Amino acid sequence: MLKGHRNVSISSLLIFLLIVFPVQPALAFSTYGFVAARQREQEEREARFDALLKRENLRDWMQRLSARPHHVGSPAGRENAEFIAAQFRSWGYQTEIEEFKVLFPTPRTRLLELVAPETYRARLEEPSLKEDRTSSNVGEALPPYNAYSVDGDVTGELVYVNYGLPRDYEVLREHGIDVRGKIVIARYGASWRGIKPKVAAEHGAIGCIIYSDPRDDGYFQGDVYPKGAWRNEWGVQRGSVADMPLYPGDPLTPNVGATEGAKRLDRKEAPTLTKIPVLPISYGDALPLLRALGGPVAPPEWRGALPITYHIGPGPARVHLKLEFDWKLVPAYDVIARLPGAEFPDEWIIRGNHHDAWVFGADDPVSGLVAMMEEARAIGQLVQSGWRPKRTIVYCAWDGEEPGLLGSTEWVEAHAAELHQKAAVYINSDSNGRGFLGVGGSHTLERFANETARAVADPQKGISVWERLRDLRLVRGSADERRDARERRDLRIAALGSGSDYTPFLQHIGIASLNIGYGGEDGGGSYHSNYDSFDHFTRFIDPNFDYGLALAKTGGRLVMRLADADVLPLAFGNFADTIGTYVRELMRLTDSMREETEERNRLLDERALTNVADPKERYVPPEREAPVPYLNFAPLQNALVRLQEAARRYDRAAERALSGGRTLSREQRAALDRLLTETERAMTRDEGLPRRPWFKHQIYAPGFYTGYGVKTLPGVREAIEQRNWDEATREIEVVAQTLRAVADKIEQAAKMLEEAS
Amino acid sequence: MLKGHRNVSISSLLIFLLIVFPVQPALAFSTYGFVAARQREQEEREARFDALLKRENLRDWMQRLSARPHHVGSPAGRENAEFIAAQFRSWGYQTEIEEFKVLFPTPRTRLLELVAPETYRARLEEPSLKEDRTSSNVGEALPPYNAYSVDGDVTGELVYVNYGLPRDYEVLREHGIDVRGKIVIARYGASWRGIKPKVAAEHGAIGCIIYSDPRDDGYFQGDVYPKGAWRNEWGVQRGSVADMPLYPGDPLTPNVGATEGAKRLDRKEAPTLTKIPVLPISYGDALPLLRALGGPVAPPEWRGALPITYHIGPGPARVHLKLEFDWKLVPAYDVIARLPGAEFPDEWIIRGNHHDAWVFGADDPVSGLVAMMEEARAIGQLVQSGWRPKRTIVYCAWDGEEPGLLGSTEWVEAHAAELHQKAAVYINSDSNGRGFLGVGGSHTLERFANETARAVADPQKGISVWERLRDLRLVRGSADERRDARERRDLRIAALGSGSDYTPFLQHIGIASLNIGYGGEDGGGSYHSNYDSFDHFTRFIDPNFDYGLALAKTGGRLVMRLADADVLPLAFGNFADTIGTYVRELMRLTDSMREETEERNRLLDERALTNVADPKERYVPPEREAPVPYLNFAPLQNALVRLQEAARRYDRAAERALSGGRTLSREQRAALDRLLTETERAMTRDEGLPRRPWFKHQIYAPGFYTGYGVKTLPGVREAIEQRNWDEATREIEVVAQTLRAVADKIEQAAKMLEEAS
Repeated sequence: MLKGHRNVSISSLLIFLLIVFPVQPALAFSTYGFVAARQREQEEREARFDALLKRENLRDWMQRLSARPHHVGSPAGRENAEFIAAQFRSWGYQTEIEEFKVLFPTPRTRLLELVAPETYRARLEEPSLKEDRTSSNVGEALPPYNAYSVDGDVTGELVYVNYGLPRDYEVLREHGIDVRGKIVIARYGASWRGIKPKVAAEHGAIGCIIYSDPRDDGYFQGDVYPKGAWRNEWGVQRGSVADMPLYPGDPLTPNVGATEGAKRLDRKEAPTLTKIPVLPISYGDALPLLRALGGPVAPPEWRGALPITYHIGPGPARVHLKLEFDWKLVPAYDVIARLPGAEFPDEWIIRGNHHDAWVFGADDPVSGLVAMMEEARAIGQLVQSGWRPKRTIVYCAWDGEEPGLLGSTEWVEAHAAELHQKAAVYINSDSNGRGFLGVGGSHTLERFANETARAVADPQKGISVWERLRDLRLVRGSADERRDARERRDLRIAALGSGSDYTPFLQHIGIASLNIGYGGEDGGGSYHSNYDSFDHFTRFIDPNFDYGLALAKTGGRLVMRLADADVLPLAFGNFADTIGTYVRELMRLTDSMREETEERNRLLDERALTNVADPKERYVPPEREAPVPYLNFAPLQNALVRLQEAARRYDRAAERALSGGRTLSREQRAALDRLLTETERAMTRDEGLPRRPWFKHQIYAPGFYTGYGVKTLPGVREAIEQRNWDEATREIEVVAQTLRAVADKIEQAAKMLEEAS
Repeated sequence: MLKGHRNVSISSLLIFLLIVFPVQPALAFSTYGFVAARQREQEEREARFDALLKRENLRDWMQRLSARPHHVGSPAGRENAEFIAAQFRSWGYQTEIEEFKVLFPTPRTRLLELVAPETYRARLEEPSLKEDRTSSNVGEALPPYNAYSVDGDVTGELVYVNYGLPRDYEVLREHGIDVRGKIVIARYGASWRGIKPKVAAEHGAIGCIIYSDPRDDGYFQGDVYPKGAWRNEWGVQRGSVADMPLYPGDPLTPNVGATEGAKRLDRKEAPTLTKIPVLPISYGDALPLLRALGGPVAPPEWRGALPITYHIGPGPARVHLKLEFDWKLVPAYDVIARLPGAEFPDEWIIRGNHHDAWVFGADDPVSGLVAMMEEARAIGQLVQSGWRPKRTIVYCAWDGEEPGLLGSTEWVEAHAAELHQKAAVYINSDSNGRGFLGVGGSHTLERFANETARAVADPQKGISVWERLRDLRLVRGSADERRDARERRDLRIAALGSGSDYTPFLQHIGIASLNIGYGGEDGGGSYHSNYDSFDHFTRFIDPNFDYGLALAKTGGRLVMRLADADVLPLAFGNFADTIGTYVRELMRLTDSMREETEERNRLLDERALTNVADPKERYVPPEREAPVPYLNFAPLQNALVRLQEAARRYDRAAERALSGGRTLSREQRAALDRLLTETERAMTRDEGLPRRPWFKHQIYAPGFYTGYGVKTLPGVREAIEQRNWDEATREIEVVAQTLRAVADKIEQAAKMLEEAS
């Protein structure tokens, strides 16, 4: 509870900003948000912080935390939470374990068999390997399954549906193939897995099998485990299939924390459970099923890397799928550790990584978790040697992320009101490996994230991680990415969809968030399998924890700078620029849909599609589509102009403040921070998105039919994609209002600076 | 020897042209080159022609001609030639068999074995199948081999080189891999096969293995034989590896006919034999070799469909390759059958298809051959019932096409002087199957080819083959193809590289040529294998000979119209338009090479490529390239303008001739035909292309590093691609001169019409 420091000179802050802009050397030191006088102090603190980091800690903790299966509700999960909490306490954090009670089904019966034209009983197990010490420790492990699949016992003809996306069913339709009453087999990839059974059920399928094709996740990619890093013949990707684009968290307690006494939905009413039984399998188990399919040869882009001709079916392959689950409530243990802020204790900088895994989880999530712990340990040590960060730091180790962001979502829902008041920024991490910095999040933090990345050295090359990422985009990027990497001061950060614990913070509450991690040179293939082990990780992913340390340096700097900056380092130029790209994308999308619809209708009128089709194969031409109207994008364009003006005004106001040389009082700074924090809140609306009110953010959301994949300006974009023109027009107005509200906040912040200067 | 018919009214001809332009209904009847008064007569003749065609003939002849292996020099090859000649004689043709003596090596020893780290001896044979009756008839058959490989006995480490093209060796270089002293294994595809050993030898390899990857030619594409049409585990693609882009035909007799007493090169000096031993293998034999490779994982686009991780090597796989051939001269029998023209006996319309095969060759070449024979039979019958075509018709069944266009090249070389005088147009066909019309050739014939295609009914759909091809381009074409298919009167025909017997006619002598055939819905996979059989063809390629009849209708119409038109149906608007697209392509190519070179040099200066490379893998950045200069394209642009003006002038002259209503004498028409014929001759230059004087055409040539793939304006294009800027500048002037010479001929033809009208 440290309070009341000296006032900050805005002018020195802005002099600093002007110095920083022109050149971007490797390891540039600049901390947006700090006054110049405190730069040196911060630079020295970061050097001390780096010197405190110990790679042995990452290795020791990973070995310990990944020694036993530690999914939510498991004994090892509880022990891990207690170990983590004890560590945080020993580093000086006020630490508690917060418990929720969440629905977590585990398998009782898993049966999959080919019953015609041959018989084959799927193995559904990952054998232990002598090269992988933990792989024999299967007594406590969850077998391969998809969480939140319903129980079922179904038999039917098999149909191969490629990735199982809506567009794949259009192809099936053109082949005259209907999946009603049938069991589909889809390959992993191209969408979040939960989309596959959802779309299959919408089309009338009675069961869904998901397999890892070696084209995407196996020998096509590289040598398989244990020779190499990639998924072997019997490796299976576990994972949740709850309808998370509707809402994440405990399926029984949407919008409220799943506390002991919370009001719960009846399981039969829970809308995020699947409608049909779903089971994930290996490519070893998929091969006999796919080989038994007849019917048309699959289109080239549907074909994987199994040594067969891929057919679509239906049949003659028939399969029997039987699944029964133990539908129990289990405890989820979130570890919450705080260092109260000295000046603004009610401004929280929250940093999180989950601790639960599907099995051993050395990579997912322990690689990110141990980096975060080491970062927290070093920060604790800095505080014990006298550092007093202005804002409160909250470290969180989430439970139950794997089944559906359970721990983070329930915590956010349980503390929504307080978070709404106090949460300034959330920083997330998850799996981490060797390679390039990956960063996504709120574009008001884009400038800050770039600046921080310029201060972190790449462990392999004599340059910053920012420079290495810029070079990656120069060398391998799209034309747009290459141009931006050359010409734009900051690298663009990705927009966030879903897939880790930032979702409730960003998309439910509107807390500016970042998600960070390294990767791209680490070998894949262990994801959600029994083989995501310490042995696999230390052979293939980040053997010396070089990038674990890089993550600790990155996360630590983000947290320290956010906690101690004189003003919260949000900036709006990049944000307004990014929104402009989204608006232009939507206009182009509508235009290209209009042209494609016109052209396709013309081809239908001319019978060209039928003329071209091979008469030896069944071909059903698509339906004629109604023409795509011209939409009124003007509200969005006008709101964008206001947003851009507000962003510029904030800059001009800052310049005047600089020339005035006046300082802001603690109260003024608190009020300014408040306004800056509220800009992200202003991007939300209480009623949420159409048909999914839990998702309140109007700029970023996971796609209703892509899952993890982000949809930006989702209300408008998904209405356009679904050809719902009336809704698109309404949502254009909704988003325009939202942008005007954001512009209001930015203008108020600008005005405060103008009046202070 | 029929002569002296009535004069032709040019005005009626042109009235007809004006009528034809506006609409293009299905099965439009219009015969460019005919006066209006003779349209009806020609339409009736074509209807009679169609009625004469018998599909049973195609089936019977195919069964007979593909019953035994009939490669050049084989007993069945000779018997087939004699059978074909006897048929032509019986249909009223003056028929002879012309014999050449050509170098044709056949295998004595074929040994390929993996000697480390395991041992495997390649099978190198195609097993007989009970579903394929001729496949057991292997006593006379040539085993899988590549003709014109040198003898050799080499052992070395193996390196996988993808398709074995120059750009693949750039990738190897970036991985720090050198093939000197090693044996390379390349997959078939992406170039003509002869390029692979040529490029391998240029890089110092000591042996070359070529295999059919199931990704390109096996189970990835469809069910394999005998279940489906595609290449099975043990199927092998035979084929020539002579350096045909240097010159085709007998390697020992470039430029002259390989007659008994011809002067021959010593075999050791023959430049088109390979420099290293080469052997083609099946994917069954390739699998153990590729699986034994270590070294870096191959880039994604190098990976095929075998169920392994593709590595590049070199080693630890080591292979032993031993090849010995019987280097003998064998007789090649060309069947030449003539119907002398009534009015212009010294204007020859030549129509050809080869008769030799690698083994049974039901598809390649018998499917095209039997269609051509049936077409010739029907034409013979029309002549016997009184038709007297103006020009001489020459039907040719070539021997020795497979090893290197031997029969056609030697015939053209032997008769070069006479052909230079008399050959008006050459029409080629080869394999034929179910699907869409494919047509390539001289763009002066583009309009004529389009018009003919509009008159042929597609056997499967109630439209013309032209309409079906247009719809194919509308539905599946590139953006440019779609736009052209909508907006341009005529469909663009392909430019010809090499791969069948048109090459000596078009590219050595400068005879306007077309190559025609149907396909795209026929199942591939039998190409150059033991399984290219009557059984395979009649199950998978064109079971009822529907498209054999369509080819007979197409080829017959082309021949009849060319032979009997009042004026040769060459037109120049499409030609000039096409040349314009080539010139623009070359300018864009140079610009994009300049930009790419600048960008790559910049990335090298910034060390960005090295910064991005994974330090765990060896990476050698490419060399800096000299900047791409701006070339003076003005000579080409100015020549193009003249060419376009000449083409327009020919049109204007024709319009004036129309309004004048005058007629041309026989001598005037002969002179006009002569000028029209000479336009293609004017596209050649005696000195030929740089470093390959046999190829004299300046507009079309097979690529020096692509083989079959065409390079248009090859002198300029290949100089640019090879970054030989001085040569590019010289060749721009050469091509400009060539285009001016073509324009001269067109202007002379226009002038003759202007003076006649």
